[in-house]
Amino acid sequence: MNTPDELLKLINIALAQVDLEKKPAKLYDPIRYVLSIGGKRVRPVLCLLACEMFDGDIENAIQPALALEIFHNFTLLHDDIMDKAEKRRNQDCVHIKWNENVAILSGDAMQILSYQILNNLPEKNIKACLELFSKTAIEVCEGQQYDMDFETQSQVTVEDYMEMIRLKTAVLMAASLKMGALLGGASQKDAELLYEFGIRIGFAFQLQDDLLDVYGDSCTFGKTIGGDIVCNKKTYLLIQALNKADQQTLDNLHFWLNETDFSSIDKIKAITNIYNHLGIKEICLLEIERQQKMAFESLHKISVSDARKMQLMHFADELMDREN
Amino acid sequence: MNTPDELLKLINIALAQVDLEKKPAKLYDPIRYVLSIGGKRVRPVLCLLACEMFDGDIENAIQPALALEIFHNFTLLHDDIMDKAEKRRNQDCVHIKWNENVAILSGDAMQILSYQILNNLPEKNIKACLELFSKTAIEVCEGQQYDMDFETQSQVTVEDYMEMIRLKTAVLMAASLKMGALLGGASQKDAELLYEFGIRIGFAFQLQDDLLDVYGDSCTFGKTIGGDIVCNKKTYLLIQALNKADQQTLDNLHFWLNETDFSSIDKIKAITNIYNHLGIKEICLLEIERQQKMAFESLHKISVSDARKMQLMHFADELMDREN
Repeated sequence: MNTPDELLKLINIALAQVDLEKKPAKLYDPIRYVLSIGGKRVRPVLCLLACEMFDGDIENAIQPALALEIFHNFTLLHDDIMDKAEKRRNQDCVHIKWNENVAILSGDAMQILSYQILNNLPEKNIKACLELFSKTAIEVCEGQQYDMDFETQSQVTVEDYMEMIRLKTAVLMAASLKMGALLGGASQKDAELLYEFGIRIGFAFQLQDDLLDVYGDSCTFGKTIGGDIVCNKKTYLLIQALNKADQQTLDNLHFWLNETDFSSIDKIKAITNIYNHLGIKEICLLEIERQQKMAFESLHKISVSDARKMQLMHFADELMDREN
Repeated sequence: MNTPDELLKLINIALAQVDLEKKPAKLYDPIRYVLSIGGKRVRPVLCLLACEMFDGDIENAIQPALALEIFHNFTLLHDDIMDKAEKRRNQDCVHIKWNENVAILSGDAMQILSYQILNNLPEKNIKACLELFSKTAIEVCEGQQYDMDFETQSQVTVEDYMEMIRLKTAVLMAASLKMGALLGGASQKDAELLYEFGIRIGFAFQLQDDLLDVYGDSCTFGKTIGGDIVCNKKTYLLIQALNKADQQTLDNLHFWLNETDFSSIDKIKAITNIYNHLGIKEICLLEIERQQKMAFESLHKISVSDARKMQLMHFADELMDREN
């Protein structure tokens, strides 16, 4: 069995071999650009780890793994337009480096490219894998729309939020695992258990991301600390703070949420203080732990030896130990 | 065999049955909106006509026909953002009625939806049809990028232009026919001949569109006459005019292309006069005729009786007699 690092190398080699030296340049250059910036390649690694867990031949899973990575990068590309983000992984976003039209169209092309790559699947797997892929892809769109809806929605419950991140983040990680499992020859039951594992890991991953925005180290996080706070993003932390606050703290929180003339540093400091006062970090850490526990319960039920689960367990642990 | 009108009814019934009453509303409402506005449903009608031409059961082709229509409407939706268009079929574009983010995301979802529908194809057809569909889809993106590139490109040859409209318009019509043919049981050779027919009809269709912008009837055309002229769009007419003009006419043409402070009516009148002087309408009509002739040569070679080709021939004729 390969380690996640070994799989990452295989993925990057295969990704570099996707033929994108094509014309028109403004369609294909941005695709090469976003795929070359890097990232942790979490989804393709999950896909290959799942395949190997069932003793499958990763040769069958490498192309689908690339499709998952390309699809994921397409969603980031379009999300960055919608969020008016300027940087991604410390590099200019496509709509900044080129323009918005180029970003829309090259994103569209990436989505098609991911389907095109999936079409190389073995005939016996194609229908099930495409069904899973399309179902997941449309859920990711739903998640992104809910996320945008939340911006103007006064009330967002923890349940709403968890459903949004399930769609926006967790299902693609879960589907990556399930696809790898199916290609590796897993039973339907084991593939479902691994999907469930992926959902829980996805939840934990996103909650960790919310936490790092406030409590991360700016050098290693790769984004500015407090970015979510400055733009009033309804994260797990803010929603819980709004839930737990007494009247005085709530007034203080609303003051900062409604204030338009503020220094970012002051706002970040003030809201972080409120989070500290309410013990939001601990609430979030508890939920992460709960999700991880459920994840490993699902993994435990899968009918392969513990030894075969080790690489995936290590990778999931590493994901949660990340600082970016 | 069904007439195109009968097929259109079947398509609209099937389209109304696609389940889009889903949440989040801002993702699915725009999809229902664009699909309900109507349009001629040219691509799905072509798909079904092709299927019936080979005595195929259109039951097998209706879902793929819908996928082609949904994909086509997705491209219009995103193109309208890129072109900053306000109206489509006399209705507000999605990015006007909602906003740009909604238009980007619901377009993304439509593209996935078209793949999702294609996944219902009979197992034996799925790989070939998806390969054709993805190849075509990415070509349509290439065509749109070339079209945008031309806006800032000083020199566009007739060959460049024809290649752009082949990609942006013709390949999807051709692929619709080919998919219908494959699903109807055509041989590879006949499917290719029908594809070639579609490419030629697509060329004629787009040249007709360019012509209608200048010489159409504003009441029936559904767009403002002279829209392409006002924004200096590099159409077949303009490119030919730049080719054929003597120095004095060229200076006059460049005057209007570079003028920023003008009345639209004056500019349309002046450039139409130049086109009339150079006989551009006749050049365009000749090229349309040439493409149609080649189209019917391909159709002629297909190994089914003339009687089975009648409906498609009628439909292609009708397409060219259109005034909108």
